[in-house]
Amino acid sequence: MKCLKDCRAKARAEFQTPLQALDKALDLPALEAALADNLAAVRPLGGEYTQEGQHRIDNLTKPLGSLGQLEDMALRLFRLTAARQSSAPRTLNFDAAPRRLNLDPALLFTVAADHGVAAEGVSPVSQAVTRQMLLNFLAGGAGVNALCRNADLDFMAVDAGVLGADFDEHPELIRAKIAQGTANFTHGPAMRREEALRALLLGCELAGRAADQGYLCLAAGEMGIGNTTPSSALYCALLGMEPAASVGPGAGLRPDLLGHKAEVIARALRANAADVASGDALRILTALGGLELAVMTGIMLGAAARQLPMLIDGFIAGASFTVAWKLAPAVRDYCFFAHCSAETAHSRVLDLLGEKPMLDLGLRLGEGSGAALGMCLMRGAVHMFNDMASFASAGVDAV
Amino acid sequence: MKCLKDCRAKARAEFQTPLQALDKALDLPALEAALADNLAAVRPLGGEYTQEGQHRIDNLTKPLGSLGQLEDMALRLFRLTAARQSSAPRTLNFDAAPRRLNLDPALLFTVAADHGVAAEGVSPVSQAVTRQMLLNFLAGGAGVNALCRNADLDFMAVDAGVLGADFDEHPELIRAKIAQGTANFTHGPAMRREEALRALLLGCELAGRAADQGYLCLAAGEMGIGNTTPSSALYCALLGMEPAASVGPGAGLRPDLLGHKAEVIARALRANAADVASGDALRILTALGGLELAVMTGIMLGAAARQLPMLIDGFIAGASFTVAWKLAPAVRDYCFFAHCSAETAHSRVLDLLGEKPMLDLGLRLGEGSGAALGMCLMRGAVHMFNDMASFASAGVDAV
Repeated sequence: MKCLKDCRAKARAEFQTPLQALDKALDLPALEAALADNLAAVRPLGGEYTQEGQHRIDNLTKPLGSLGQLEDMALRLFRLTAARQSSAPRTLNFDAAPRRLNLDPALLFTVAADHGVAAEGVSPVSQAVTRQMLLNFLAGGAGVNALCRNADLDFMAVDAGVLGADFDEHPELIRAKIAQGTANFTHGPAMRREEALRALLLGCELAGRAADQGYLCLAAGEMGIGNTTPSSALYCALLGMEPAASVGPGAGLRPDLLGHKAEVIARALRANAADVASGDALRILTALGGLELAVMTGIMLGAAARQLPMLIDGFIAGASFTVAWKLAPAVRDYCFFAHCSAETAHSRVLDLLGEKPMLDLGLRLGEGSGAALGMCLMRGAVHMFNDMASFASAGVDAV
Repeated sequence: MKCLKDCRAKARAEFQTPLQALDKALDLPALEAALADNLAAVRPLGGEYTQEGQHRIDNLTKPLGSLGQLEDMALRLFRLTAARQSSAPRTLNFDAAPRRLNLDPALLFTVAADHGVAAEGVSPVSQAVTRQMLLNFLAGGAGVNALCRNADLDFMAVDAGVLGADFDEHPELIRAKIAQGTANFTHGPAMRREEALRALLLGCELAGRAADQGYLCLAAGEMGIGNTTPSSALYCALLGMEPAASVGPGAGLRPDLLGHKAEVIARALRANAADVASGDALRILTALGGLELAVMTGIMLGAAARQLPMLIDGFIAGASFTVAWKLAPAVRDYCFFAHCSAETAHSRVLDLLGEKPMLDLGLRLGEGSGAALGMCLMRGAVHMFNDMASFASAGVDAV
């Protein structure tokens, strides 16, 4: 246990070294080129290990298909792990297909940033709470901390754009403030293109560092007062939802203010009409997104580029996923949707994305809390695959 | 770790001492009296700790209600734990309400038995598989073993009525064969009243021993080829379902044979018409149930009598629950429904029972596999309750 603790402390320390995505020497063309490289590294999973994985699952001592979604998860984890192992640089690589699946150690990032649109009264909660909650994450007192402990997930908070001064150093904090929150997107773009690119690349870089440190599964969540509003706006622009159908109460907006929230989104779509009409996911993210949303998109792209499984949390992480998917469709092969949240539009969004998540517990906390719960089920799929006997080995008649 | 292992070995050894429920000296009146005692010990949870528990949950650093079903579970676990602590015999008991919730150590029983109705061709699987799978449980190779390891659940198998000779001793096996399976209930009652009573009392006794050994949460699952058929029959008799609406493919019955399965159930209901018409849950269980089903019912009653939380698995465990609930309605206060299975009738059954389970993953394995997965979520509720900071302690503005 001490060794594991030391390793984790070392891993955390490596997140603190200077991040390239924040390097002021990189100009816009260099940032664009770096993003293109990351997108090109997201390759679709081939079908080559499907038959082998399915054969193994079908010969475990259980009726065919009787572990439902656990079997689907295990098959995809097998294909993904085999693909990762076969692409790893080795002199000898006789057997790319893994004998055992493994998700551990696993790491969850909670990315925090503020939103200019909070000025429009779209949240009942004061913007100061973004900062207060980041401190709560570092003290270990938030919901996501409790659920990371429950799921044996390592945790790192990221300041991608929380209003106010830089935070003090902390072993579980990545200090990467790209801006003092976003601009109010009802008047024009939420971010400058350079900010959006840096946020995306920051996410890619964090995922890459996690992979370098031996993490085998990543998850991401967020904190940012007002951030259901940019999420809904992104769904409108990327999935063709209507503003009124895209909104929900978030952290507890009064029902009679939901119409106002939809109207704010409609204004934002008009104020950024050229970007929305372009259909270009990067322009849409820049105009309508948020710093933490962009960083999460980057983490998803970075996880996929390293062929690591990636847990998608709820409504807001789903918006980040939608951007990632539009930028690099193959990212979907590496993503596992943890839950359908209580946020009104989420089940419709999941239908539009064609995803059936693991859980539907009426959660609407964010932070990565749903992803942390989903981790327990994904590990269940791993245990099924690794630990169960086959009909032949157990002497059980095939059923 | 070694200490924990020793404790668990000792706990397992204590399950091996002679079971009173199997004592041949007990006659029918003595068995009836013992069951009455157990039923009387199942007391409803009062409302006295509800406000205190809700107050604590509502002051954790999250929007009100934003952890959904996790909050409902935590509140009930708090009430249940407080009730248990306040009823414990102590000289001084200033503070019955617990400061922390705890479910560990937790134990899952998988109860196995055979069914005479298998002769009617209601399952595609040979009856020999019940026995083979019990050996697979003891070798640690079944789905429930893998998912117990995933959820850190201790595991005990129970032979309540598997066809054939007694099994060899094994530290994870309770040898409690009450009969060589049940009779074919299309010709008359599945069990004799004495058998049903012994099976119920065996379950109560196992739950009581688990409580004595310090287990703080119980779960139960089953293995018995053909046992979706008695489960469906119990739902028909106890919840008023029609046979055709109560059946599903179980371990993989061909769709064109579902009508036959419903017809078998209709015949069983006719063959035991007086018991069904009596509305007496014990008579109905005796006529239509199974030995493992009755033991699971007993475990649920025994857990409730000791005020321990009890995880309910899927379709078959749900039938055991329905019997327990008819025998002692307050048992429901202690039961947590883990999942809605893929078995066709299960979602309708859950609606009739008024329960919304934690998971809906298309599982249809049985054995307790869904309960083992649900354990991870119930522990998430415990971590939420124990580990999260309050608004005041974290310096976060109440939202």
